[in-house]
Amino acid sequence: MIERYCSLIEYQGYNYSGWQCQPFLSVEQTVQAQVERALSAVAGQKITCVCAGRTDAGVNALGQVIHFDSEISRDAHTWTFGANSNLPSDIRIVKTLKIAADFDARRSALSRTYRYVILNRSAASGVFSRYCWHIPQKLSVEKMQEAEQYLLGERDFSAFRSSQCQAKSPFRRFDALQVVRVDDFVIIEVRANAFLHNMVRNIVGTLVEVGRGKRPPEWIAEVLVSLDRRKAGMTAAPYGLYLYRVEYPEKFSVPQICNSIIPFFAV
Amino acid sequence: MIERYCSLIEYQGYNYSGWQCQPFLSVEQTVQAQVERALSAVAGQKITCVCAGRTDAGVNALGQVIHFDSEISRDAHTWTFGANSNLPSDIRIVKTLKIAADFDARRSALSRTYRYVILNRSAASGVFSRYCWHIPQKLSVEKMQEAEQYLLGERDFSAFRSSQCQAKSPFRRFDALQVVRVDDFVIIEVRANAFLHNMVRNIVGTLVEVGRGKRPPEWIAEVLVSLDRRKAGMTAAPYGLYLYRVEYPEKFSVPQICNSIIPFFAV
Repeated sequence: MIERYCSLIEYQGYNYSGWQCQPFLSVEQTVQAQVERALSAVAGQKITCVCAGRTDAGVNALGQVIHFDSEISRDAHTWTFGANSNLPSDIRIVKTLKIAADFDARRSALSRTYRYVILNRSAASGVFSRYCWHIPQKLSVEKMQEAEQYLLGERDFSAFRSSQCQAKSPFRRFDALQVVRVDDFVIIEVRANAFLHNMVRNIVGTLVEVGRGKRPPEWIAEVLVSLDRRKAGMTAAPYGLYLYRVEYPEKFSVPQICNSIIPFFAV
Repeated sequence: MIERYCSLIEYQGYNYSGWQCQPFLSVEQTVQAQVERALSAVAGQKITCVCAGRTDAGVNALGQVIHFDSEISRDAHTWTFGANSNLPSDIRIVKTLKIAADFDARRSALSRTYRYVILNRSAASGVFSRYCWHIPQKLSVEKMQEAEQYLLGERDFSAFRSSQCQAKSPFRRFDALQVVRVDDFVIIEVRANAFLHNMVRNIVGTLVEVGRGKRPPEWIAEVLVSLDRRKAGMTAAPYGLYLYRVEYPEKFSVPQICNSIIPFFAV
């Protein structure tokens, strides 16, 4: 009998070409291939998995969610710790649960929350350089916060979409944008039903232009209606970005990252 | 004219055999040698420096303080950013100030504060594995907090001292011990006038025995009076330890890490 499982996964993207397997990339180069190889070793047969958010090269995840099917029955503990013993130290399964057969890590997701971490002081960090984007010029969090009003709701985000984006529709529903300063860090949290390719990093790069005072907050509205990627700011560095949480209907009881890494990026 | 400078330094200890230069180690193997080489490049002549706390192999620093003397006058910005351009990405000078000639980074220090970060959940972290010690068994923070009363004050810490410790006296004045849980992290902050070799990590290893319920909190008192290292718990892993802050008399105006990395280990 085939059963469906759901896992919560953490990884540092630094050493990977992103989540997704690609024909010309080795197992060592994508997170998906590593996870599938590790789960397959536990099952003793080929396991493939579907994720909630296909993170790009260098992007991290604290709350990635996947589902996979297996004819081989294993308990939750065996999936998690068996796979972890076959994974490199920058990828870990945090929890695995048996889940309803109609659960789909991608299609059942109601929204995705990403966090972006900027170190905003003159000197870079010797300890966390691979974990945040360093911007030496002082950012105005207040001005960045003003941009929220222009982004919320269902909109055409073509201006924040990379040229390689394969999504059919450029429309997404933006639910929340929070910009907070914690000492010398500026943390940006965004929630939307889904994101276009590079959308979070393009929004962050554009917000940074506003925060540096190079453009007024209203400029975000101009960029948005232009539907023109060339009007927006630069693409923010991938290593400052974290897929933080994926929200699902309660009925599925998907594991959440309340048992997680929040103190590293407390807001 | 010789002038004295003071710098605040951050580093990740993972790639180093500790702070201190040693005759049989290359420049790439110690933090001190890297910092001295980088400052010497700015001065155009050999600079040597004295630090507040000689961290061991693998131990990190967020608030290391050094002083150095130079006949060559450079402004604060040039020392900091000139040196940073000559340092590897896991070491950064955060700030440099000219300071009074009677300031000594080691001798003027009133106390040192270290933080130790434990990830306390069943699965290790895929993102922060090099930044915390993973302990899967649930720790009782309450029991660990009870140990504070046995450690505070001026005491002989021979039981928590490594056999390689070269300090003349085993007496230290323990000012504070805080144990806090933040979600799945347990963070231990200790402050003392100074620490013996491996003292923080030996105390943490011993507290963990108490937190796991293997020993009662009063056991700490027994270990302490035994003056016997073999009675204490294991030495905690170095990568979970951070030299966090060094306190000096106010008159010196030493740069503090208020402009720092606190959100990564918020308490």
